[in-house]
Amino acid sequence: MPEAESIFTKIVMGEIPSLKVYEDELVYAFLDIGPVSRGHCLVIPKVCYATLDAVPDATAAALGRVLPRLCRAVVRATGASGYNVLQNNGRIAHQMVDHVHFHIIPKYEQGETSLGSGLGIGWPAGELDSGEGLKLQDAIVTALDE
Amino acid sequence: MPEAESIFTKIVMGEIPSLKVYEDELVYAFLDIGPVSRGHCLVIPKVCYATLDAVPDATAAALGRVLPRLCRAVVRATGASGYNVLQNNGRIAHQMVDHVHFHIIPKYEQGETSLGSGLGIGWPAGELDSGEGLKLQDAIVTALDE
Repeated sequence: MPEAESIFTKIVMGEIPSLKVYEDELVYAFLDIGPVSRGHCLVIPKVCYATLDAVPDATAAALGRVLPRLCRAVVRATGASGYNVLQNNGRIAHQMVDHVHFHIIPKYEQGETSLGSGLGIGWPAGELDSGEGLKLQDAIVTALDE
Repeated sequence: MPEAESIFTKIVMGEIPSLKVYEDELVYAFLDIGPVSRGHCLVIPKVCYATLDAVPDATAAALGRVLPRLCRAVVRATGASGYNVLQNNGRIAHQMVDHVHFHIIPKYEQGETSLGSGLGIGWPAGELDSGEGLKLQDAIVTALDE
């Protein structure tokens, strides 16, 4: 796996300062400097993978394992009423840094529209057509085996 | 850990049909019947935990481990240009079913505002005040050790 670099790599290396909240062999977590709400954290693999689909099993498991621990800590520390965990892949999907990062974004009772009010979610849901659904299921299961 | 039940528990048990795309000892994944875009999948622990902070380490690692595999498969199967992984906790954070679920939501080049166009993201970012940041860091690190 080629090891790319990003601004987050520099943070992991300590070349750019960060407010670190967690670190282990594979994972690093720190406060977002442009928080969408109070307590907004980023959880990243130390190695730079551009998108989640590129992350190998062991690193993915390490990221997954620590997410609930960090969510618990963020909720305890902030008193948030809820939170969103968001991980974006590709410019089209709002990814700004090409180094996998999970956002933990607390949500508070007060104000839904103001600065720092947490993640805004648009949900243009449709209905799954059963024929289309079966085709998609088959395509995804086949792709999993490849 | 008390074992709660949800509509997703019934899906895992096969009492409610689903278009399953993946299953292992701890994890189940299937197509969302109200997709926000084509290929929208849900990845859940088989045991019902209401929110991510309640998920134990082994299950969290299993969820994390399989996410990149499923993302790869969804991208291959759909040809999506990008995708969002979203996991909501609490009504206030747009959680509708009280059983942890990661959404994998493909994003396509066409139309950003129409039905099925994928996740809409509102990002009311502020700036992290350095004093507030240090306090938050300390509170989160302390909470992690509790």
